[in-house]
Amino acid sequence: MPVKLGEIAEAVDAELDGNSECLISGVGTLKNAKAGELSFFSNRRYFSFLGTTEASAVILSAADGQACPANKLIVADPYLAYVKAVRFLYPETGFQPGCHEAAVISTSATVDPGACIGANTYVGEHVTVGKDVYIGPGCIIESNAVIDEGSCLVAGVTICHDVRIGKNVRLHPGVVIGADGFGIANDNGRWLKIPQLGSVVIHDDVEIGANSTVDRGALEDTVVGEGVKIDNQVQIGHNVIIGDHTAIAGCVGVAGSVHIGKRCMIGGLSALSGHIDIADDVIITGMSGVSNSIREAGVYSSGIPATDNRLWRRNITRFKHLDELARRVKALEEKNQ
Amino acid sequence: MPVKLGEIAEAVDAELDGNSECLISGVGTLKNAKAGELSFFSNRRYFSFLGTTEASAVILSAADGQACPANKLIVADPYLAYVKAVRFLYPETGFQPGCHEAAVISTSATVDPGACIGANTYVGEHVTVGKDVYIGPGCIIESNAVIDEGSCLVAGVTICHDVRIGKNVRLHPGVVIGADGFGIANDNGRWLKIPQLGSVVIHDDVEIGANSTVDRGALEDTVVGEGVKIDNQVQIGHNVIIGDHTAIAGCVGVAGSVHIGKRCMIGGLSALSGHIDIADDVIITGMSGVSNSIREAGVYSSGIPATDNRLWRRNITRFKHLDELARRVKALEEKNQ
Amino acid sequence: MPVKLGEIAEAVDAELDGNSECLISGVGTLKNAKAGELSFFSNRRYFSFLGTTEASAVILSAADGQACPANKLIVADPYLAYVKAVRFLYPETGFQPGCHEAAVISTSATVDPGACIGANTYVGEHVTVGKDVYIGPGCIIESNAVIDEGSCLVAGVTICHDVRIGKNVRLHPGVVIGADGFGIANDNGRWLKIPQLGSVVIHDDVEIGANSTVDRGALEDTVVGEGVKIDNQVQIGHNVIIGDHTAIAGCVGVAGSVHIGKRCMIGGLSALSGHIDIADDVIITGMSGVSNSIREAGVYSSGIPATDNRLWRRNITRFKHLDELARRVKALEEKNQ
Repeated sequence: MPVKLGEIAEAVDAELDGNSECLISGVGTLKNAKAGELSFFSNRRYFSFLGTTEASAVILSAADGQACPANKLIVADPYLAYVKAVRFLYPETGFQPGCHEAAVISTSATVDPGACIGANTYVGEHVTVGKDVYIGPGCIIESNAVIDEGSCLVAGVTICHDVRIGKNVRLHPGVVIGADGFGIANDNGRWLKIPQLGSVVIHDDVEIGANSTVDRGALEDTVVGEGVKIDNQVQIGHNVIIGDHTAIAGCVGVAGSVHIGKRCMIGGLSALSGHIDIADDVIITGMSGVSNSIREAGVYSSGIPATDNRLWRRNITRFKHLDELARRVKALEEKNQ
Repeated sequence: MPVKLGEIAEAVDAELDGNSECLISGVGTLKNAKAGELSFFSNRRYFSFLGTTEASAVILSAADGQACPANKLIVADPYLAYVKAVRFLYPETGFQPGCHEAAVISTSATVDPGACIGANTYVGEHVTVGKDVYIGPGCIIESNAVIDEGSCLVAGVTICHDVRIGKNVRLHPGVVIGADGFGIANDNGRWLKIPQLGSVVIHDDVEIGANSTVDRGALEDTVVGEGVKIDNQVQIGHNVIIGDHTAIAGCVGVAGSVHIGKRCMIGGLSALSGHIDIADDVIITGMSGVSNSIREAGVYSSGIPATDNRLWRRNITRFKHLDELARRVKALEEKNQ
Repeated sequence: MPVKLGEIAEAVDAELDGNSECLISGVGTLKNAKAGELSFFSNRRYFSFLGTTEASAVILSAADGQACPANKLIVADPYLAYVKAVRFLYPETGFQPGCHEAAVISTSATVDPGACIGANTYVGEHVTVGKDVYIGPGCIIESNAVIDEGSCLVAGVTICHDVRIGKNVRLHPGVVIGADGFGIANDNGRWLKIPQLGSVVIHDDVEIGANSTVDRGALEDTVVGEGVKIDNQVQIGHNVIIGDHTAIAGCVGVAGSVHIGKRCMIGGLSALSGHIDIADDVIITGMSGVSNSIREAGVYSSGIPATDNRLWRRNITRFKHLDELARRVKALEEKNQ
């Protein structure tokens, strides 16, 4: 599959500084790429490898060109160009349509002949599986679910009843879409479960990482907007609405009835409290606790970065008395007026 | 299924202010309910919809009655009454008993004829499945486990060997009950695994959300008390004991050998350190880190709510020097005596 | 299986103070052990049970011997000796080799005749399953994966294509190894997925807890070193390298391209930001947020321990103004010079 560097430059819309005939047969990191491989430089942590890389070509910005002896593909956004190059060099492989003989498909299900259903996968009553859908082994698709064309359930994915999955959605192993939301009411000391009557709608081009969960709505549907990207082990509560093209990193918890805007980015292990609204274009850094609505685009943060344990112990002891400390400062100020 | 409002009032023990003959055919949110639907008002965030709702009837408290033009069901706890109304309007549907032909049931297992076992589910040696138990597709029930009557394993649930599940328990997809606890001891730089000899006991009326895990005990059993409700992606370590009617929100981590009292409520993404005791009726707000036992009922919290990133950066820089700041205040006070 | 105490003393290399002929038929906690059982004392929280235990023998350190009336096994590290005793008393039970008739094994897979493959497990094309490997029910092993000898996939484990699992590895239910990493680049407001070309290498003697996930590398492999122990619901991002004999507690999130040293210990619900390095022998306490590299061995912490909610509210209000408070102290100091 070796490809000429000139073709890659064209595919990723880069300015080529070097030998356009150079053959590229793969990609690698700056540190470990070998001759014949393409690399990229976008994170300054790896600057020291730029001058010594054995890559035959490197994608980088004009400003960094001088530091690199290899052939260069010069672009404004090296990471994006690298992604495009990888997609160009490694196009997705197709699959053989058809149902594995160890798949269990209900007679009332409608499976497009161009779809593929893997071994030990169960397709329930009245499920609809569209064209070019790939459902890997060990999946569970419960009754009345719809999987629209081009979507891919890698393996071991569970889709609960009546959930609707859009086009070109990719769901990784262990994902559960449409389990009951956490709806309980206290009845004299005992918890009463509230039936979860809504469903989940996953729009087109969504990707959801391994072991993430999206709960069905209590009354209306939980909605994941077009192009949303969700990492592993993320929990999305019932009635949540996530705007188009928002990205959520691993281990985030979004409580029920949260509305998240478009093009937001939420860092790993953050938590969003229930019933709050997050505006469009909000960035929440990792491990933040968001307990109130955020009305304006911008960057928001909380959490305390880790330090040496002894220093931390002294500081948290003081934190316990922070209110008192502030009062003491106030008293001093009054004395000093 | 339309039902007269008067019947609903009776079912939820509400005072009816309006037309008892009004036919209710469903439920909806204040904002989106249509004519013929019942709604409720319990969260003040949604007050603005109370006057404009198209719902034919609204469950609310007496104090809010005037703000709402629709028929009213007046109760002390509108959310609870709403839950009762939904349960009245949408009774649980039954299921057909019997084992799917693609279920794999060990010959030594005892399955009640009134139970249902789904496709691609495995029932191991000497397992006991009680009356009216529903085990959905893709579940794994390992040897000697007991599932008592009326319980429901929705789909893709794993029950490890010797685990005992009580009556009317509901386990959502991806739940794993009885995996080995994290028991290791350091032997000269290498970790030595300690066999986990205990099991897990889940008492009656427990519900556990998608992809949550409850580890088996090291020596004695891990115990989840009656009526406990656990949300998605919660981790319960080995030897933990959870008191009756406690509720735990999503993504909480409970380390080993923690004892949690009765009727506690633990907010999302909180962490409980190992070997601590939590009294009855303790409320822990979301994202709290609990490293010491809590001996008295009450509300406990930690964590820092997210703010504007620039302000946060300045504050965490100061936090690193908080102990020093406190010393400086002390010095000033001495000077000012 | 009763065993003489003298034999146990020898097996765990303990000094016996008591009756070497005493028969031990099991183990129990100090609090609940009965006559004929062996217990241990290593956590001072349980000191009050040391004098009253009904255990026939207790493993403890010399310093605590006097407080205990039972037969004693005296060692330097009671917990470690207890672990060794349990391993001696409860050796792992073997399994019957062979493939369950409801297993689905691709014709191109190579399965050692000494391996066991459970019901409803799928073994994909060109997979290699080594000697004495146990793969429980409901597992998914995708194409070209290698499971080396003596490893155990308990049940419901997913191994994605090309992943290599070493010897004597133990993976608990719901584990997903080799799902795509979270690699996306923003292309004019839409996220472009970057193909994840690397794989995952799990070295020998690793154990990974229920519902944990280890993503495949973007370019190179994600690597989990020899003897690493990972608890439940841990997320390991793409390109991460974890050094030998590191232990990671439950619900930790490790972002992409993090390099963790050898013999580290990471407490539950901690988060490590992307592209950082953690030195060997680093201990990170629970719920810490690590956003910068840690270059030296030591103990590191962050997070605020939970306190009474009213006190916490006052303190976090002050925290919001901490930078301002520090400036006010500075101003006072200048006045007081």
